[in-house]
Amino acid sequence: MTLPETIRWRDHQLQLLDQRQLPHHVSYLTITSLNAAWTAIHSLTVRGAPAIGIAAAYALAQSMRQVAPDQFRETLIKNAAYLRSARPTAVNLVWATDVLLDTAEVEPNYDRLVEAAIGIHEQDAKVCQQIGAHGAHLIPAYANILTHCNAGSLAVSQQGTATAPMYHQHAKGVPFHVYVDETRPLYQGARLTAWELDQRGIDVTLICDNMAATLMDQGKVDLVIVGTDRVTANGDVINKIGTLNLAILCKHFAVPFYVACPASTYDKRTPSGREVIIEERDASEVRQQHAANVRVYNPAFDVTPANLVSGVITEHGIAHTTEELSQLITRSSLNTPRAHPT
Amino acid sequence: MTLPETIRWRDHQLQLLDQRQLPHHVSYLTITSLNAAWTAIHSLTVRGAPAIGIAAAYALAQSMRQVAPDQFRETLIKNAAYLRSARPTAVNLVWATDVLLDTAEVEPNYDRLVEAAIGIHEQDAKVCQQIGAHGAHLIPAYANILTHCNAGSLAVSQQGTATAPMYHQHAKGVPFHVYVDETRPLYQGARLTAWELDQRGIDVTLICDNMAATLMDQGKVDLVIVGTDRVTANGDVINKIGTLNLAILCKHFAVPFYVACPASTYDKRTPSGREVIIEERDASEVRQQHAANVRVYNPAFDVTPANLVSGVITEHGIAHTTEELSQLITRSSLNTPRAHPT
Repeated sequence: MTLPETIRWRDHQLQLLDQRQLPHHVSYLTITSLNAAWTAIHSLTVRGAPAIGIAAAYALAQSMRQVAPDQFRETLIKNAAYLRSARPTAVNLVWATDVLLDTAEVEPNYDRLVEAAIGIHEQDAKVCQQIGAHGAHLIPAYANILTHCNAGSLAVSQQGTATAPMYHQHAKGVPFHVYVDETRPLYQGARLTAWELDQRGIDVTLICDNMAATLMDQGKVDLVIVGTDRVTANGDVINKIGTLNLAILCKHFAVPFYVACPASTYDKRTPSGREVIIEERDASEVRQQHAANVRVYNPAFDVTPANLVSGVITEHGIAHTTEELSQLITRSSLNTPRAHPT
Repeated sequence: MTLPETIRWRDHQLQLLDQRQLPHHVSYLTITSLNAAWTAIHSLTVRGAPAIGIAAAYALAQSMRQVAPDQFRETLIKNAAYLRSARPTAVNLVWATDVLLDTAEVEPNYDRLVEAAIGIHEQDAKVCQQIGAHGAHLIPAYANILTHCNAGSLAVSQQGTATAPMYHQHAKGVPFHVYVDETRPLYQGARLTAWELDQRGIDVTLICDNMAATLMDQGKVDLVIVGTDRVTANGDVINKIGTLNLAILCKHFAVPFYVACPASTYDKRTPSGREVIIEERDASEVRQQHAANVRVYNPAFDVTPANLVSGVITEHGIAHTTEELSQLITRSSLNTPRAHPT
C-alpha cells in the first residue's frame, strides 16, 4: 500500500499534506504565500526535519516567482531568513534554504531555484532508500523495535529515516514488530507513525511514552531507532522531546539506541547540543481540556549526548563514533559548510 | 485553602468525590449498592491506593446492613472477594477488607463494621500527617520536586502520601516548587495533582511524562517523591506506569528517588514485584480520538526494583533499605499478616 505524498509541487505551487488532520483526514493545503508557508511550518501542517527542509525550499522558490532581477538577491535573503524563523531547531531548514541561496549566487532566477528545490526533494528520496539499505541488518526476523515521534514517510520522502530500515525489511518479507511511543504532547507517534506503519502492513503496538521502561524490563525491545532534527559536531542528537529519556533507558537495559538521518542533518558548525536553541512551544499543547490551569513547561526537543548513541544510520553507512560520523558525512558533497547570510 | 473530602460517610451511605470530573467539576457520587461500589473503584471514580482501601471498607460495611446474622460471615466473605476483584494491584483493597473480616470474626455485626471502616479512615489521616513530618526535611527551601500520578490528598486523606511532606513544609511557609508529570494515559498528574497543589497555593509546573529527563539534565530536579500501590517483601515498588522510568532517570542523573506510603502498603506475603499481577486496562484509554486504530499495550502499573529506591517514607520514619523497611513496618500493629480468606 502506498501512502499519500507528504509534499507536492503542482503548477508553480507548493501543496502540503495537512498532517494535523491525520490519521482521520487526508487533505492538502495549497501554499499561496510566504506567510502561509511560514504558518504551515510553524503550526506543524508539515513537520519532520527533512520534510521541513523540502517544503521550505519549494516555498522559498515559489516566493521568488514575480521578483524583479534587481531585487532578487536581497529579497531571497530576506525571505530565507523569515522562513528559518518558523522552527528554530531543525537544521534542515537552514540547510535547504542555504542550497537555494548558493544556487542564486550562480544563477539568480526562479526556474533555477525550482530545479534546486526539486533536486533536494529527489535527493531526499534516494537518501532514505540508502538509509534503509544500510540499517536493514539491524532488524533481524522477529525483532521488536521501539520508535518515537515520526521520522517516517510523512516526515521525509517515501521511506522516512527511522522507518527506512523497517520499510526495507518489510519489502523483503522479513517479519518484525514495532512499538510506537505516542509522543506527547502532539501525539506524532500515535497519529502519524502508528498510522503509516499500519497502512503499509507492518505489525504495530501503540504505547504511552512512560511505558517503554516496562517493555525493556520485560525484554520486549531489541532496539530503538529514532530520527533527529540535528546532530551537532560532537555527535549530540537533538530530537523530539522524550528521545533522551529513551536513550537513558536503553543504556540502563543495554538495548541498542540508533539514530537515522540524512547527512544534511549533521551540523558541523554547532559544537554540541548545549549550543542549540530548543524551541519551547505553547502551554495549550500540554494543557488540553484535561489539565488544571497551572504553568506548563513544553520544550519541543531534547539533547541526547553522543555517548548514549549506539550508532547513526546515514545514507553513507552507520557511524558508531563521532569520528566515524564526521568521516562519513565528509563524503557527502551536499554538506558544504557556508557562512549564514543572516 | 481546603480541598473537598475524597470520601464521606453520610446516613449509612458512602459518598465518593467523583475524581473523573476533576478539575472542572466537584461532585459526589452516592454509593447505593455493592455493585455501584465495585464500578466506582473499577472506573476510577475513587482511585489512589489508600482511598480505594477506605472506600472499600465503607462499601463492604454498607453492604452488610440488612444481612441476617446466620448469613453474615458467608456474605461478608463473598462481598469482600467481589470488591477485591475491582482493582487487582492495590494491596490496600485487600488490607482494608481484611480488617473488616477480622472485625467480624470477633463481632459479626453491621455497627462494628462501620466503626472499623471509620477507624481505617481516621487512622489514614493520622498516618499521612506522620509521613509528612518524617519526610519534611527532604524538602529544603527552594527545592524542586518532581512527582508522578496522584498520591495526594485526593488519593488518601488530607495530606496525601507523596504530597504529605510538601503540605507539611508549605504549612510552615517553606518555599519550594513542584513539577508534576501529567501521567498518561489518564492524566492523574495533570487533572488531580496539579489541581490540588495549586488549590493549596503551592507553586506547580505541569510537564509531559517524557520531559523529566530534560529537566534532570538541566539540574532542575532535586528529588522525586511518588506514592505506591504496593511494596513487596523485597522492597520492590509497584506504582503507576511511568514510575520505573523516573527511577531509572534518577539513577542516571543521581537524583534521590523517594516513595511515600502508609505501612499498610507493605505486602510481606509477596516476595517481589515479579509476582504481582499488573492490571492491563482498556486500549481506549490510550487510543483516544487522536490515534490510529492499532493495537495498544496499556499496563496500569510498573515495578521499580528496590535498588533504585533511595528511601521509603512511612508513618514510622524513612527506611533506606529493605531491612529497615521491614523493621519499621513490624512496629505497625495494623499490618498483621493473615491468610487470605478467598
